[in-house]
Amino acid sequence: MTLVLASVSSSRRAILEGAGVAFEVDPAGVYEAAIKRRFTGEASALAQALADAKALAVSGRREGLVLGADQVLEFDGEAYDKAPDADTAIARLRAWRGQTHYLRGGLTAARGGEILWRYRSSCALRVRPVSDAFLERYRGEAGAFLTTTVGGYAFEGLGAQLFDRVEGDFFAILGLPLLPLLEFLRQQGVLDT
Amino acid sequence: MTLVLASVSSSRRAILEGAGVAFEVDPAGVYEAAIKRRFTGEASALAQALADAKALAVSGRREGLVLGADQVLEFDGEAYDKAPDADTAIARLRAWRGQTHYLRGGLTAARGGEILWRYRSSCALRVRPVSDAFLERYRGEAGAFLTTTVGGYAFEGLGAQLFDRVEGDFFAILGLPLLPLLEFLRQQGVLDT
Repeated sequence: MTLVLASVSSSRRAILEGAGVAFEVDPAGVYEAAIKRRFTGEASALAQALADAKALAVSGRREGLVLGADQVLEFDGEAYDKAPDADTAIARLRAWRGQTHYLRGGLTAARGGEILWRYRSSCALRVRPVSDAFLERYRGEAGAFLTTTVGGYAFEGLGAQLFDRVEGDFFAILGLPLLPLLEFLRQQGVLDT
Repeated sequence: MTLVLASVSSSRRAILEGAGVAFEVDPAGVYEAAIKRRFTGEASALAQALADAKALAVSGRREGLVLGADQVLEFDGEAYDKAPDADTAIARLRAWRGQTHYLRGGLTAARGGEILWRYRSSCALRVRPVSDAFLERYRGEAGAFLTTTVGGYAFEGLGAQLFDRVEGDFFAILGLPLLPLLEFLRQQGVLDT
């Protein structure tokens, strides 16, 4: 059975490719802003709702086992989406210094417009007390990651220098909890046991 | 101050490069077999002794802050080094099915032939009950990793399909506990705070 990743995320693709999983990419094109606006629940439930929406949208119009995934950042009880610009991303990192934020992830598998499996992940990351000078340099070097990732960092890259404590699955931080997903794919016969 | 990595490991290089750390590579050329033969202690102490030897060898002959690192696999109380050939690597993975082995890591920083800092890591990985057919396919696809890594796998690659439970720092599994190292490098003034 064809596995379809309903996501434009390059890190999700890289994780699946790295693990030797064959898949196609078919972005959902879901209008996320509408879901986010009307959503009043917790960050974790929002991430799951967005993952559901992506998996359902793509699996409703094509064959295959479709994976939708999303990630919402939570700090002090508030949900954060990608920053609209670099200034905002840096201002957030400055505000998060010395404190812990959470990456809440939702992962959904669907087929024929029906949900087969869901998985929620949660990771806790504490931004160390970075200096303003560090943040200035970081701003120059982080580039597109400031606005294309939910926290303004790629943890597998320069972003690692932002943190002094991290709890949770590395792959979930990057946006795709790999081991639970591989187990599900084996159960579905997509991967050899 | 120049940071020097006394290691030929491509994954250690990739981790440091990814995190935006500038360094030179200067392999230690330590005769590891001699250290291993005369060593009678635990896997963790052996990994540390090998890391020490690498850091001391290189820092004794050049300027800079030198990092030595090593990893020893422990299963059922025995220490394992890289497998000598693919057959041995696959036989080990077959024996480890359904059971947990440990990656014991040692990391040492030295300057001018003196040790400044040491860090030991430990990760627990359970090989899932993989089928013989899976191991056959794995053998064909894992290639050089069978004999260039201590467990016969690259966890950041196809190796992820071998496991159903993993505990410990992702970077330590790959051979370089990144967050503790970054903290040390900041304390030494090698990285911005």
